[in-house]
Amino acid sequence: MKPLFTPKAANPKLKDVKIDTPFWTHYTNLVRQTVIPYQYDVLHDRIPDAEKSHAIRNFRIAAGLEEGEFHGMVFQDSDVAKWLEAVGFSLQTRPDPELERLADEVIDIIEKAQQPDGYLNTYFTIKEPEGRWTNLAECHELYCAGHMIEAAVAYYEATGKRKLLDVVLKFVDHIDSVFGPEPGKLKGYPGHQEIELALIKLYRITGDPKHLRLCKYFLEERGKQPHYFDLEWEKRGRTNHFPENIRSYGKEYAQSHLPVREQTTAEGHAVRAVYMYSAMADLAEETGDAELFDVCRKLWDNIVERRMYITGGIGSLAVGERFSLDYDLPNALAYAETCASVGLIFFAQRMLRIDPDSRYADVMERALYNTVLSGMSLDGTRFFYVNPLEVWPEACERNATRSHVKVTRQKWFTCACCPPNVARLLSSLGAYIYMVKGDTVYVNLFIGGEAELQPGNRKVKLQQRTRFPWEGKVAFTVSVQEETPFTLALRIPDWSSGVRVAVNGQEAQAGRKNGYVMISRLWRNGDQVEYEMEMPVLRMKAHPLVRENAGKVALQKGPFVYCLEEADNGRNLHELVLPRDAVFHSEFRADFLGGVHVITEEALRVDEQAWGRELYKPFGDPGFIRQKVTFIPYYAWANREPGEMTVWVREI
Amino acid sequence: MKPLFTPKAANPKLKDVKIDTPFWTHYTNLVRQTVIPYQYDVLHDRIPDAEKSHAIRNFRIAAGLEEGEFHGMVFQDSDVAKWLEAVGFSLQTRPDPELERLADEVIDIIEKAQQPDGYLNTYFTIKEPEGRWTNLAECHELYCAGHMIEAAVAYYEATGKRKLLDVVLKFVDHIDSVFGPEPGKLKGYPGHQEIELALIKLYRITGDPKHLRLCKYFLEERGKQPHYFDLEWEKRGRTNHFPENIRSYGKEYAQSHLPVREQTTAEGHAVRAVYMYSAMADLAEETGDAELFDVCRKLWDNIVERRMYITGGIGSLAVGERFSLDYDLPNALAYAETCASVGLIFFAQRMLRIDPDSRYADVMERALYNTVLSGMSLDGTRFFYVNPLEVWPEACERNATRSHVKVTRQKWFTCACCPPNVARLLSSLGAYIYMVKGDTVYVNLFIGGEAELQPGNRKVKLQQRTRFPWEGKVAFTVSVQEETPFTLALRIPDWSSGVRVAVNGQEAQAGRKNGYVMISRLWRNGDQVEYEMEMPVLRMKAHPLVRENAGKVALQKGPFVYCLEEADNGRNLHELVLPRDAVFHSEFRADFLGGVHVITEEALRVDEQAWGRELYKPFGDPGFIRQKVTFIPYYAWANREPGEMTVWVREI
Repeated sequence: MKPLFTPKAANPKLKDVKIDTPFWTHYTNLVRQTVIPYQYDVLHDRIPDAEKSHAIRNFRIAAGLEEGEFHGMVFQDSDVAKWLEAVGFSLQTRPDPELERLADEVIDIIEKAQQPDGYLNTYFTIKEPEGRWTNLAECHELYCAGHMIEAAVAYYEATGKRKLLDVVLKFVDHIDSVFGPEPGKLKGYPGHQEIELALIKLYRITGDPKHLRLCKYFLEERGKQPHYFDLEWEKRGRTNHFPENIRSYGKEYAQSHLPVREQTTAEGHAVRAVYMYSAMADLAEETGDAELFDVCRKLWDNIVERRMYITGGIGSLAVGERFSLDYDLPNALAYAETCASVGLIFFAQRMLRIDPDSRYADVMERALYNTVLSGMSLDGTRFFYVNPLEVWPEACERNATRSHVKVTRQKWFTCACCPPNVARLLSSLGAYIYMVKGDTVYVNLFIGGEAELQPGNRKVKLQQRTRFPWEGKVAFTVSVQEETPFTLALRIPDWSSGVRVAVNGQEAQAGRKNGYVMISRLWRNGDQVEYEMEMPVLRMKAHPLVRENAGKVALQKGPFVYCLEEADNGRNLHELVLPRDAVFHSEFRADFLGGVHVITEEALRVDEQAWGRELYKPFGDPGFIRQKVTFIPYYAWANREPGEMTVWVREI
Repeated sequence: MKPLFTPKAANPKLKDVKIDTPFWTHYTNLVRQTVIPYQYDVLHDRIPDAEKSHAIRNFRIAAGLEEGEFHGMVFQDSDVAKWLEAVGFSLQTRPDPELERLADEVIDIIEKAQQPDGYLNTYFTIKEPEGRWTNLAECHELYCAGHMIEAAVAYYEATGKRKLLDVVLKFVDHIDSVFGPEPGKLKGYPGHQEIELALIKLYRITGDPKHLRLCKYFLEERGKQPHYFDLEWEKRGRTNHFPENIRSYGKEYAQSHLPVREQTTAEGHAVRAVYMYSAMADLAEETGDAELFDVCRKLWDNIVERRMYITGGIGSLAVGERFSLDYDLPNALAYAETCASVGLIFFAQRMLRIDPDSRYADVMERALYNTVLSGMSLDGTRFFYVNPLEVWPEACERNATRSHVKVTRQKWFTCACCPPNVARLLSSLGAYIYMVKGDTVYVNLFIGGEAELQPGNRKVKLQQRTRFPWEGKVAFTVSVQEETPFTLALRIPDWSSGVRVAVNGQEAQAGRKNGYVMISRLWRNGDQVEYEMEMPVLRMKAHPLVRENAGKVALQKGPFVYCLEEADNGRNLHELVLPRDAVFHSEFRADFLGGVHVITEEALRVDEQAWGRELYKPFGDPGFIRQKVTFIPYYAWANREPGEMTVWVREI
């Protein structure tokens, strides 16, 4: 390993981080008490009126425990794996014997569904045993394997139980016997990336170089010519799995249009992309591969400088759930899949580990507080797959171009990737708050609670107290057994107009580096740090090349992007305009939408009555009527009666 | 017949109208010398690199003149019929023995392709003889029949030759034996309306009440329950013709969701809609049916007040080529099929005949000078099917939502409805200029030339001299053999800020009625009328409920809507803004785009350089750079190198 990325960074184990702050305690409780049980019931087809999952039944059938047919998507197994991973995360944070029992039961079934040679996939086992590994481009076998590996790692870390870990180790051995550079092995790689990052997680548990090597193989093989997906397509007689012609989407769709090291722009299916970039960053970190990291940085920059919504949503196109070209970020037609923002957070966390720079954490926070939270209803039982920035309900119903945009969150989906992805992210949130690199403790997210950390291999307990995200003040208390030198690096958020820091009541001598306030000292037990981030209402603009947002403004306060909803502001939100000199009032309303800061303002509404019936006519300045408008945080929209919503508002 | 709509209006025969004015002489010559011969070659598959038509070969095969398979769309026959109709129109205006010979050859083939029982359709004759009349919803048999009837009428009127007329009379007898209220007959009606308006044309030649009755039957049967398209679908075993599931588009798609008299909004496929509304107006006119006319007026109002682009384009949605909901008029995603605007002109002409009100003629002119002309290149060899109001070429290539938008006109199309529709409209343009109703001559379009008219059954020759559409002055000379009383009604266009009229150099005593200047007098031979319409550059706005155009302005001068093109103004047209106090300069450039008025203005461009790399940030007023911009008439766009285009421009 080159010294390039040393010292190696680490995020604390989940068991070492306790979250205790009103905003997030609500969500962690929700995930534990509602989302995980709800999804358990969904996987067992016990929720009336929701799309049937059949995922557990598929495993039971493959295990020989019952008779029946496979139902669901070819990647249905992954829903079970993602649920198990969320359970693993939850148990790491807070043991729960009953939940562990349920998980063990599911794992018993999975173990029985594994084939003697290690293969594990219910679709192919039940429905198409002769079709194994013949359609990597479409059939998600390696993707499902990846999620099962992630689940096994999380569950092993939570419980120390090896059953699922042993299942996946056997499966990985099987995969290793099928794929690789050696003669007679398939030269393939997944159509939907996921196993790559999972293999690194596994390697970090096992230390087995085979696991790292297999990840590297999948990444390095990708995009070579002649193209594997063409070869396997010819070999299987040019058949397709999906009626939708995925091949017509081009090789960019699965980021196999070029070898990964030659890619410079974020193309294709957004979830695949960020899962792959995450694995590339992981591999760069593990192997000290500066060239590969440089590729990751280019791809990162392309996303966050040209292809990301202000909400941290990515993948603007519904057809192919994919990235569009630079600056093509339509608001009402946005796809911005919840999973893609979850993946963007994965990518951000990995970039941070190699290159501690607040800009990665800024995006992580933006995606988390906006698109990821928007993905789930406030009560944790309904989900958005698509996260538009502008909604006109009647048009979503009647204009097919908008049919992917749902006006209300759904109970479940035929393609149910997003709900379990939200669950596993929120249940592992503790891993994203802090990072230790050498003797520096980075505070990337402001989430109250306690963490046990080891800067410079010394034990430090850090308590964070804050009313963030609603207020910008954070108090830290350091607990050490003896005087301990380390650097506390406090992120300076991109939304803050200024920060102040004091240690034990004294303004601190603190440097700034890569977007962090760096406080290096010999810490004593009970040392107090007061960190205050100004959190004004920001009138955000988009780059002039974002066509849809020309002349428009969006409000942001702290990590939250705001929006207008019909419930507060009436119909035809596009008729509202914000004067440049408007004064905003911001207040916390505890009784509203689970407790949110609302922003109110005297705005103007186009005087529609003054117009008449004509569709077009020569007309001077429109008249306006004064109207007080109320903005709510974007994540909280669509928790009342269905109606219009918009993030970007015209400015005059 | 009720007296309601008397006196009955008439448009002059094409042979009685000569067009002689620079702008339109170019087009009529083009249609005669280029478009009709070009389309003849296309139909015979003689244009290299263009989509193969195979339409003539289909007829030759059905006629037993050669061996082979059917190729093309199920409605491929209609391309031949539309070409023949254009030829008929052209020959009415200007005899051409060589063209007539070519047409006669084609007609000979068609006659031979007709089956002994009168049936005529090459798809079913060649490919699916047992499938006749089993899939009216999708298979366009009655639609093709309608176009062949229209061709026969036009060709008969041009040449007096009965061969094609006899073919269609025999075909109509066959159709009449298949469809109707009598027991044993099918209770069906066309999936794509067209035969309805054709039957009225036929009735006006033959006077045969059967032809009127059949039209009425098809219209009145439409939309009844149980639904015919469901019944026939069940009967044929639930098979579909198109892989695309047309049934999923709903019954609105073909305006069969309700009986026609209960329809109040323009729904579904736009071409079907306006063809049907045209036939409904025809039927109302022929039968004096005030209720039916009232339905037509409601549908008209819904289109022009809520569902039409400023260019006269209709049908904003690509999926289903259909109307969207009120005020949903996206610019970059516009469909606005050329054929639909041709059909809107048909509808307008018919509404005018019943209810002479300039508002119908205003829309007719708007659709003609903008969308219809945009449908064809200046050299008459390339065509647009889709007429967007905003184009970003890279996005059209890479964003599938925009894939229907072509940046350059195409040589031909797999579904080639539009090019022949433009040809038949332009070759019959003479029929749209004047209308006689009782003793009133209505001038609906300002197109120089001469016409023989019969107000109050007295012979009048009217000469029109003008540089319209580039200037608003029109001079008329009346030629009569004796002093003749009639009213000359000159349309007051919606784009004119004022009109003046003088007769023989004296300001005229003229009333105004329904948007026309009415000059009633005893006309003497050689009387001169000077009509002057102010033609300022108009800053047009859209109704406040048109979301996409909020804060935007479009320029119009005379009948022309203007646009910005990249060739004149550089890339990123969305960065250009028009100050409210901008002064426009307008000048005619004879050497530019075939001769057009351009509008130039000192505008502003957002200073992109002042921004930086960030995608979003808090930012005050954007800086602007001055830039002189050049607008060209919309119809002339895309006649140079491919690039961006926009009609609507932000205003500050």
